[in-house]
Amino acid sequence: MSDRKLFELCGTDEARRFSPYCWRVRLALAHKGLDAETVPWRFTEGEAIAFAKSATVPVLIDGDTAVADSWAIAEYLERTYPDRPALFPGRPSALRFIASWADRVVNAGLVKLIVSDIPSLLAEADRDYFVSSREKRFGMPLAEVTRDREARLPEFRASLQPLRAVLMQQPFVAGEEPDYADYIVFGGFMWARVVSPLKVLEESDPLHAWRERMLDLFGGLARRVPAREGS
Amino acid sequence: MSDRKLFELCGTDEARRFSPYCWRVRLALAHKGLDAETVPWRFTEGEAIAFAKSATVPVLIDGDTAVADSWAIAEYLERTYPDRPALFPGRPSALRFIASWADRVVNAGLVKLIVSDIPSLLAEADRDYFVSSREKRFGMPLAEVTRDREARLPEFRASLQPLRAVLMQQPFVAGEEPDYADYIVFGGFMWARVVSPLKVLEESDPLHAWRERMLDLFGGLARRVPAREGS
Repeated sequence: MSDRKLFELCGTDEARRFSPYCWRVRLALAHKGLDAETVPWRFTEGEAIAFAKSATVPVLIDGDTAVADSWAIAEYLERTYPDRPALFPGRPSALRFIASWADRVVNAGLVKLIVSDIPSLLAEADRDYFVSSREKRFGMPLAEVTRDREARLPEFRASLQPLRAVLMQQPFVAGEEPDYADYIVFGGFMWARVVSPLKVLEESDPLHAWRERMLDLFGGLARRVPAREGS
Repeated sequence: MSDRKLFELCGTDEARRFSPYCWRVRLALAHKGLDAETVPWRFTEGEAIAFAKSATVPVLIDGDTAVADSWAIAEYLERTYPDRPALFPGRPSALRFIASWADRVVNAGLVKLIVSDIPSLLAEADRDYFVSSREKRFGMPLAEVTRDREARLPEFRASLQPLRAVLMQQPFVAGEEPDYADYIVFGGFMWARVVSPLKVLEESDPLHAWRERMLDLFGGLARRVPAREGS
């Protein structure tokens, strides 16, 4: 039993935690050397996290403190555990740009490749909620959103070029060792790996090698989660 | 007279210094509170910087040390003047990603909008060199590269969305105060401002307001340079 609990999104299988934002926090906790019990959370369990004044996970409970939102949680961890390895290079604001890019390029690109794979992971009530809310967001059936996805992979991979160039110069986004910059970006790739059989990265891609290094961190914390991706 | 000299790219008018990479360094020097005499440098003056084993500017001479390449110069300044305001948040590698993005999205986008405006700033020998080398790179006349540029502005502006979102949250890319992250990105916009009448940013754009703040830094260091942009 840990003093800390992390509400993490999952489907019918509790092991398949797939939220990109929960992964950012799970790796941030590991980076700080902090454990936290997973509380499995599903899309229709809003009341379970209402205490944190949030409608979405991740939500962290740390002793008497509850914090929602992955960015706020990372800042909280950095502030509360300053003597443990730093998540941010100096100040959190220095990573705002990569977070913005990861949301708008990586995650926004991935969702159009993998969103139709998610419903089959979910129990019925969650599935109904997920499909109707996402179909409303995209204005079309989810199968339409991901249609021709193999043909669109080259464009998605090309959009990652600014990241790829960095990972040809240094092993992690942050430099010689990973920090929250890496966890921000990796969250999206972990999401894709857990929910979709689509191979979003080619094995020859320097990004693939980086993802392998990320899967190996903290004793294979992320690699232990069942992957749907064929690779 | 300063102990430091910075070779900066210019055209026939020495005041119109326009290289995005020279601007990164000029602002990095100002950030550190260091002066440096400008040595005007033109495309065909390769022999003048051969001592630094470089074919391009910026080249900095600081006492007995010569450093070429904007990134190497910024690292040199941070290492050599550690007691002055920090250029990097913690470690230089933390800014590799934004530099990669600025080169591949901002500067690569801008060149296709403004490259045909550059020859008229240059003396004849430089102009011949510039036009033939750039036409070779693009495989077409420069007027073709920038054709229909007004129609392509919305796409370029949309590509800046990850940066725009950050600047709606905080006044500078780095946070409350600018650092080298800001100078990296601003270099491209300064280049466009000096060489081209094209209004690359709308006045209502949060990026425009940020660019104004950047132009005001260090007593209006960048604003004092003659602009071609109509704004």
